[in-house]
Amino acid sequence: MAHIDLGVDETQFPGIRGPMQFRPETAKPLNELAEVLLRSEPNTLTPGERELIAAYVSGLNECEYCCNSHSAYAAAQLDTGMVLVNQVRADVDSAPVSAKLRALLTIAGAVRDDGRKVTGELIEAARAHGATDVEIHDTVLIAAAFCMYNRYVDGLATFAPSDPSGYAARAERIVAVGYGKP
Amino acid sequence: MAHIDLGVDETQFPGIRGPMQFRPETAKPLNELAEVLLRSEPNTLTPGERELIAAYVSGLNECEYCCNSHSAYAAAQLDTGMVLVNQVRADVDSAPVSAKLRALLTIAGAVRDDGRKVTGELIEAARAHGATDVEIHDTVLIAAAFCMYNRYVDGLATFAPSDPSGYAARAERIVAVGYGKP
Repeated sequence: MAHIDLGVDETQFPGIRGPMQFRPETAKPLNELAEVLLRSEPNTLTPGERELIAAYVSGLNECEYCCNSHSAYAAAQLDTGMVLVNQVRADVDSAPVSAKLRALLTIAGAVRDDGRKVTGELIEAARAHGATDVEIHDTVLIAAAFCMYNRYVDGLATFAPSDPSGYAARAERIVAVGYGKP
Repeated sequence: MAHIDLGVDETQFPGIRGPMQFRPETAKPLNELAEVLLRSEPNTLTPGERELIAAYVSGLNECEYCCNSHSAYAAAQLDTGMVLVNQVRADVDSAPVSAKLRALLTIAGAVRDDGRKVTGELIEAARAHGATDVEIHDTVLIAAAFCMYNRYVDGLATFAPSDPSGYAARAERIVAVGYGKP
């Protein structure tokens, strides 16, 4: 049970979906931010890569609902699916991703800890592997945004289903229509 | 100098204003979220109280630009001005705020640390002093959102002016017209 009465059946509206039903005024910009960061085109990072950054940060923050959700959304949009997501979550340094994506994931991990942990060296490493200013910007903001979403979901003690099938079903819908659609 | 080329004179667009010029697509929902959380009415928390929560969290995160900004915005909208802001930032437990606001600030501090630190006891304490579900919700989301804004501003190493007069001037504008207005 969430800390506040969300006015919905939490098994039908788990995680962030409960507070979004409770407070549509804040749900609107929260969904718009997720849509532009994780899905909108043109973007030189694929939706799968951007969802992978979201899943990685949510895993570091140990937010079960967000990590399960965005792992499923990443897996649905990456050729190598959940295998790669699990490799990245287990060890970014050895996971089979491009050197650029590894450098961006490393920046995301630093942001998650504290923005001031993003050093000039981390930025130069990303640039040396071809990362653009927009890619660095978006990586920093995705990581920062999930430090918000994770705290929102856990700070209200929302319900996180343990059955993975619900997350996979939700992934199909997010991939098909996006965030914040009725 | 910020980690990326923001395409603006950073002394004219300090802190979050530089990345917002660089990436208007993400600036839009970020400004809309600030506007609805911190300023929109009706809300049983005043804009001054909501800005005080933002300033408090930004201070805990040691984000100079956000803390100076939202301290100035809070001070401009509280009868007791910057004196109260400084008292809250120095010691929430002894600051002369209502028992309800103290309980909400304590929840905000827990969210800032980790969403899972928001215990049923903290929620019950806020409720016992009259906090509503919407007030608890908004407090959790304000605190979570500033864990994003703070990391965005510091993760990109944006410029934070040391002269307080610029923050006070900006406060007048925010109070008059709001967030994200041209």
